[in-house]
Amino acid sequence: MQAPCGGEGQCGKCLVKVREGVEEPTAAERELLGEARLAEGWRLACQARVAGEATVEVPASSLVAEHRIMSEGVAREVPPEPNVRKVALRLARPSVDDPRADLNRVMEALGGGVRPPRRVPALRSAPGVVRASGFQVTAVVAGDRLVALEQGDTRGELYGLAVDIGTTTVVAYLCHLAGAGVKVVEVASDLNSQAQFGDDVISRIGMANTSEKALAELQHAVVEVINDLIERVIQEAGIRAEAIYEIAVVGNTCMSHLFLGVPPAGLGSVPFVPSFRGAQYVRAAELGIKVNPEAGVYVTPNIGGFVGADTVGVILASELDVSDGLRVAVDIGTNGEIVVAREGELYACSTAAGPAFEGAKISQGMRAAVGAIDSVEIGEEVRCHVIGEASPQGLCGSGLVDAVAELVRVGAVTEAGRMVRREEAPGLPEKVARRLIENENGIEFVLAWPEEGYAGEAVKLTARDVRETQLAKGAIYAGMELMLEELGAEPLDIQELLLAGAFGNYIKRESALAIGLIPSLPVERIRSVGNAAGVGARLVLSSVAERRRAEEIARRVKHVTLSEREGFYDRFADAMMLRPLPV
Amino acid sequence: MQAPCGGEGQCGKCLVKVREGVEEPTAAERELLGEARLAEGWRLACQARVAGEATVEVPASSLVAEHRIMSEGVAREVPPEPNVRKVALRLARPSVDDPRADLNRVMEALGGGVRPPRRVPALRSAPGVVRASGFQVTAVVAGDRLVALEQGDTRGELYGLAVDIGTTTVVAYLCHLAGAGVKVVEVASDLNSQAQFGDDVISRIGMANTSEKALAELQHAVVEVINDLIERVIQEAGIRAEAIYEIAVVGNTCMSHLFLGVPPAGLGSVPFVPSFRGAQYVRAAELGIKVNPEAGVYVTPNIGGFVGADTVGVILASELDVSDGLRVAVDIGTNGEIVVAREGELYACSTAAGPAFEGAKISQGMRAAVGAIDSVEIGEEVRCHVIGEASPQGLCGSGLVDAVAELVRVGAVTEAGRMVRREEAPGLPEKVARRLIENENGIEFVLAWPEEGYAGEAVKLTARDVRETQLAKGAIYAGMELMLEELGAEPLDIQELLLAGAFGNYIKRESALAIGLIPSLPVERIRSVGNAAGVGARLVLSSVAERRRAEEIARRVKHVTLSEREGFYDRFADAMMLRPLPV
Repeated sequence: MQAPCGGEGQCGKCLVKVREGVEEPTAAERELLGEARLAEGWRLACQARVAGEATVEVPASSLVAEHRIMSEGVAREVPPEPNVRKVALRLARPSVDDPRADLNRVMEALGGGVRPPRRVPALRSAPGVVRASGFQVTAVVAGDRLVALEQGDTRGELYGLAVDIGTTTVVAYLCHLAGAGVKVVEVASDLNSQAQFGDDVISRIGMANTSEKALAELQHAVVEVINDLIERVIQEAGIRAEAIYEIAVVGNTCMSHLFLGVPPAGLGSVPFVPSFRGAQYVRAAELGIKVNPEAGVYVTPNIGGFVGADTVGVILASELDVSDGLRVAVDIGTNGEIVVAREGELYACSTAAGPAFEGAKISQGMRAAVGAIDSVEIGEEVRCHVIGEASPQGLCGSGLVDAVAELVRVGAVTEAGRMVRREEAPGLPEKVARRLIENENGIEFVLAWPEEGYAGEAVKLTARDVRETQLAKGAIYAGMELMLEELGAEPLDIQELLLAGAFGNYIKRESALAIGLIPSLPVERIRSVGNAAGVGARLVLSSVAERRRAEEIARRVKHVTLSEREGFYDRFADAMMLRPLPV
Repeated sequence: MQAPCGGEGQCGKCLVKVREGVEEPTAAERELLGEARLAEGWRLACQARVAGEATVEVPASSLVAEHRIMSEGVAREVPPEPNVRKVALRLARPSVDDPRADLNRVMEALGGGVRPPRRVPALRSAPGVVRASGFQVTAVVAGDRLVALEQGDTRGELYGLAVDIGTTTVVAYLCHLAGAGVKVVEVASDLNSQAQFGDDVISRIGMANTSEKALAELQHAVVEVINDLIERVIQEAGIRAEAIYEIAVVGNTCMSHLFLGVPPAGLGSVPFVPSFRGAQYVRAAELGIKVNPEAGVYVTPNIGGFVGADTVGVILASELDVSDGLRVAVDIGTNGEIVVAREGELYACSTAAGPAFEGAKISQGMRAAVGAIDSVEIGEEVRCHVIGEASPQGLCGSGLVDAVAELVRVGAVTEAGRMVRREEAPGLPEKVARRLIENENGIEFVLAWPEEGYAGEAVKLTARDVRETQLAKGAIYAGMELMLEELGAEPLDIQELLLAGAFGNYIKRESALAIGLIPSLPVERIRSVGNAAGVGARLVLSSVAERRRAEEIARRVKHVTLSEREGFYDRFADAMMLRPLPV
């Protein structure tokens, strides 16, 4: 069941039809659904209280749909230098002349620079392994610490997991860490099941801070998703979970907190202080992650309250930290993070742009899943493409940007964002004009009718949806402008604009340029880099040098809080205009 | 119930009287008890199988008696430099201009050189502590790692526990680690309940290597004793267990293994290889010890298979590592460890001497507990002192040495160790001579008769007991001689002879000299230093410099395996003579 608002009765995404056995509608339901729909039996699953035996009809649009997630990103090869490594040792057998302790035998064979185990299970298992294997063992070394011994020569069985924890989506990359290069063996992804408690970070921060139990629920939710992904990738790869000895994680600041189960105590209100910022390295088992019990988890450092390790991952993947020219990265996930960089100087900010493009604030918005309109063209008639070639159930981010851009182009929406009445747009083709309808909600534009042969209800874009699009893209554009100003630059100075994240990958550039979501740069300066945050996770899994680099980036990037900047709201107002920018 | 032999039916210490409801006596019982005693209903509790309803009479001598343990030792003051310390911090409150993360706020206030927590619980609790305390916290730092945060200024509440795990006895010292000096606040001791599985290390090594379950039982047994001691000392001191943030442990090599639950896989047979030798530092909670869950346990390094951390403790306490003159320490616990030292050169060995002096191999031997004869004088009559002024139940180590020395002096035992017949010692006073009796076991000397007004059976010294005493003292003396030879020295060159351990403390020096347990040195060169191993534990608890010193000692001491030394058995034969040595 979808619940972007976290069960607050505000998004209307959990619509169900119930005939009887439920209590009276709540105020939230009355406001959102209106008496007519209530009379038809429509209710919100998050609000309606069951009072007896009830039959509930769940429309497909209320279910969490099969989703489209892009897990490929920009590639960058680094010399393999993983934090965890295996060393095969052939030990001398003890004798009267060589009565060294088992562990000393191992440590001396390893040579200097490696410290003995700190954990009791490793100490306890060592003598048995050494003896059962006839003094031929493989040492597993994480950092400078011996963490485990295995019988025989198992150097080939060494895997790591890179995990990108998005607010909406979790992607896991199983990587083979042995050998000349680190290779991605399997990839799997799934929705972040924390979404059942709220679609955006703000609602999850709120929930996490209500009680230890709530925080634990959120922590378990994401760990369960990761465990499921692990199960999938190891089955595909035909390996044991125990062969995974290291995990590297990126996520935004809130995701990093919830993944570790650390209360985001100061993250819910001004001045938005995180509980920790730097890199963390903890034991996977302490978090409930089912890999080798001695495996470590590297949690990539965050930059600030709302610019997290995922942004560090984007910078690392795209090497913005060593850019000479002016380069900008925009990662539109559930939040929209922007990084501007030139000659090693880096600024980053976060905007709450994402939810609109991920469907949360759009009346019929949905994620890029089967049934989502992901592209719209308007000529004599409206032509929508639906993911999975199914009947349309709603509108995803790229479809939204297309729809708004096309409606502006044909004059059904003004540059200022007002959706016009049919009579105000006399030039519209007949089949397009009739889609502009007025009802108690104001003006709406019908993108898809059931009469076009589709099952289900019509998919419409409302005047309110256009406004949400303006707010989101205005925030991104204004934020980018403001940060460029820190470097004494302007949008058209950008030498390379990187669009990261799924949205950046699927968006039609022409539409984004047309409505001024991104500046009017020559198209060759705009590059989609896919899931760059995930690439960053793979980099810190592959190399401790990249970890040091990530930590350096996290310290060096200047975190800009937009709302506190003078001039932000002026720029924001300008940037809301639906036209190519800058003017 | 006493069970020095580990339930093998060999020591006869678990004698009980049963009338019916038990199966036929085992071969071990027939051999040990004889038909006459079996007919009276005497059985061994470790052998007799219950076949139905049975009434069992347990004589006081079979119960583990209230015991006498010396926990005071040689004192040595060191500048306090414990591994764990508390730092009170008054943190700046977050603001828009100072949005540093909670943890960064703490780490920066701590200054450089301290690393952030590695454990998830510490990360999780930090934000709550920081905020609940109004940004006034106390950081607990172990080594270079922040391990916990506490609300407010709790610097005064910092305790450590020094533990001496003996094969027979466990002693715990609660120490206050805050302030100008480390102070012992409370001391408690108890028997090592592993003894129920066998009195000596050999039987426990055997048991530990039978199965993981058996090893776990031994580990739990000692941890339970320690937890009981903790409960006692914290109640006496009126503190919470959570205030204990560090534990330092000494024990012999076997005890170190069993305490950590590490299988002593190679310790049971030639070449007696331990599983680990160096110092270990693990989390108390991983071992099941009930102190602060973040507390660390420092396990002092061992020297070799049978010379353990307790000997390191003795060397540390008595500073043998920096002796100019020739100094020797003899620690007679359940094993007898000997250290010889001169100008920084150190040799150590272990002998299986202890069990005789702790009662295990002596027919009516017992620990120094209520009812034990602890001193014997022979004049016109035999005069015994009994601990607790009770009726005598047996003979403890100091009583045994006295008895043998006195019997040799009066001519009832020859220098070669033969107990004579009454007619071979015509000069014996009448009341002494009549105590030499002959029965099916050979010749015995009655130390205490029931007719002297005591309750219970007679306490006798057998010819076999004299032989066990010879074997034990012979091993110690020969070992000492052999190690002195490594330094080109002889027994009379010893400038200071330290007697460590309870036995060393209570033994009558004249008797020890008379039977050649120790060399005939001027009495002022002999010093009892009490539980020096325990002092060593307190030193490594008090100071990381002492830990480094202990580690250096453990590496530097040369471990001598007596049985492999040429000439050992010759010396041993000479050293068994019951007369002042050297001749």
